Amino acid sequence: MTAESFIGLSVQEIDTPALVIDLDVMEGNISRMAGYFKGIDANLRPHIKTHKCPIIARKQVEAGGRGITCSKLGEVEVMIQAGFTDILIANEIVGRQKIKRLMDLAAQADLTVAVDDAGNIEDLSTAAQAAGIQLKVLVDVNVGMNRCGVDPGEPALALAKKVAASSGLTFMGLMGYEGHVVSIASADERTRKGRESMKLLIETKDLIERSGLAIHVVSSGGSGTYNISGPYPGVTEIQAGSYIFMDAHYQETGIEFGSALTLLATIVSLHLPDRIITDAGMKTITAEFGFPVVKGSKDLEVIGQNEEHGKIRTTTGKSSLKVGDKIELIPSHGCTTINLHDKYYAVRKGNVEAVYPILARGKST
Amino acid sequence: MTAESFIGLSVQEIDTPALVIDLDVMEGNISRMAGYFKGIDANLRPHIKTHKCPIIARKQVEAGGRGITCSKLGEVEVMIQAGFTDILIANEIVGRQKIKRLMDLAAQADLTVAVDDAGNIEDLSTAAQAAGIQLKVLVDVNVGMNRCGVDPGEPALALAKKVAASSGLTFMGLMGYEGHVVSIASADERTRKGRESMKLLIETKDLIERSGLAIHVVSSGGSGTYNISGPYPGVTEIQAGSYIFMDAHYQETGIEFGSALTLLATIVSLHLPDRIITDAGMKTITAEFGFPVVKGSKDLEVIGQNEEHGKIRTTTGKSSLKVGDKIELIPSHGCTTINLHDKYYAVRKGNVEAVYPILARGKST
Repeated sequence: MTAESFIGLSVQEIDTPALVIDLDVMEGNISRMAGYFKGIDANLRPHIKTHKCPIIARKQVEAGGRGITCSKLGEVEVMIQAGFTDILIANEIVGRQKIKRLMDLAAQADLTVAVDDAGNIEDLSTAAQAAGIQLKVLVDVNVGMNRCGVDPGEPALALAKKVAASSGLTFMGLMGYEGHVVSIASADERTRKGRESMKLLIETKDLIERSGLAIHVVSSGGSGTYNISGPYPGVTEIQAGSYIFMDAHYQETGIEFGSALTLLATIVSLHLPDRIITDAGMKTITAEFGFPVVKGSKDLEVIGQNEEHGKIRTTTGKSSLKVGDKIELIPSHGCTTINLHDKYYAVRKGNVEAVYPILARGKST
Repeated sequence: MTAESFIGLSVQEIDTPALVIDLDVMEGNISRMAGYFKGIDANLRPHIKTHKCPIIARKQVEAGGRGITCSKLGEVEVMIQAGFTDILIANEIVGRQKIKRLMDLAAQADLTVAVDDAGNIEDLSTAAQAAGIQLKVLVDVNVGMNRCGVDPGEPALALAKKVAASSGLTFMGLMGYEGHVVSIASADERTRKGRESMKLLIETKDLIERSGLAIHVVSSGGSGTYNISGPYPGVTEIQAGSYIFMDAHYQETGIEFGSALTLLATIVSLHLPDRIITDAGMKTITAEFGFPVVKGSKDLEVIGQNEEHGKIRTTTGKSSLKVGDKIELIPSHGCTTINLHDKYYAVRKGNVEAVYPILARGKST
């Protein structure tokens, strides 16, 4: 059977392992997040790195997203082919081949890219001039995550001036991703640390504006801080992505979005109490944030994974499960789990409504 | 640039992140393993779950492999399309759709499948009869891994009798995978525990033969036990897979195969000493067995990974690396890392000789 031939069937009839979207829950998440941004000045620019799927990105933009966010050029290529025109690359684009691809893409869509290095700015400027393009640029500021990003304050000002002085580049503003904050479980601590990060970012914005440069964009935030960084004065857009599905890891933050993604798995071998074996292993569902949670069961606990098998125990010693039965697992980390799959089964009220291709799966260059 | 346009270029010119095979080392591994099996009775049946690539499977079979081993029907489909005809599915195939696919495939190639459940045997028998096929079956015995597999001794005998009595099925013998042994670092302990597992398997073989059933196949083993289980009297074939590339995890066993696979990554942001940021994150290289190792460097240590970024520190506080430089990472777990990629760059003496598509990537159903 092809994936499409499952349309109309019940979830339990889908061949496994399979990613399953609860459409009602996902659409509720889209509408809740879009609704929040209708009430504040900042815009929502959904990050597609979680779902990697143009069909879902389209729903987000139609609900009120201001363009989309991507991490990788391969993702941008997929999204431009799908008709998206306003794209932020929230990442540094480095190296001869990539900069060439970036210029080709910038000729087709309204792209903005992040920078944190003087040499990279020079490379982008040279390439933009050669291509006859004016490329929009955000200076990426390290607001405490200690990954990419130039230090806030004077170092950021120096890069901003360099961008502004570079032919072929248009200095648009700043990006600062508080990635060290977004999944802190305590709302109080998340709020405190999120505001600390935004303070660094907005102080840098003020410093740059005092130097005479205009700032049009201050891009920040994730799903765990949309309502912390979003309303922070001076922030213009939020790059939330994970809210679309709310994996088990993100649920620990308590933000009010529903769990919309599961992995359907089949019991392929069974010896109670601790050898309930599924077809959902490391090549199907990731575990860097912990093993998946069995949906709708308090007694079943995932205790191990091999490449193509998951191992579950029943805490009661008993189970009515038998070989061939199907269960749903909630991934601990949706973004990396989705990157293992080529399609979603989009389900409404228990039946397959559509199959969505994950066109940007594996687009890591 | 397309992948093919990198042919002839040096490794350093490949766009990143990219999987790179050192062909001389990989071919040395193939030839060393094939050579070992020329000296013993048991055959090598290479497991393709590591490389997922027909081009590499072909090299293994041409060097002396007796057919191939797969885990998933999706892998079998790819390998049959590539012309392979002798395939062991070292896994249970459960569920209506999968059994239908299995029968379609069994009509095209010489397939053998594992079973460990009476109900599954009945389902296979019914489907084989309906399809007019005689399907080869191995009874999967739990030799201590405690994953799939029926208990050794009488329970295995009962399933063997059931298979032998089932129309449409041909009882061929036993499978027992000592997966809990293959990556034990100590050779002595690996040998002791490997022999314990093989003793269980061969005692079960003897029991079944005494009952009057013939056993033609006893399939076992992995890369860490090829020279323990391979020469064990009664074992007929070994399903080694990981030896092809020897990831960092398997290197701890000290078995004499070379490290043939790296991930080429680019430095995209750099703030010494502990923010050397690469484009190799969780979506490109897996970390369930630990972070990757930086090839050829004692001073650089991977200390973190996000979805699209890796973080490295220099233990000396100094480094001559700059943004745009490329480094090679040795994956801790090749099998799952490869499953994130669509192609290998096959390199000989520093230059790209070919691009190999990873056709069975993501074939998890």
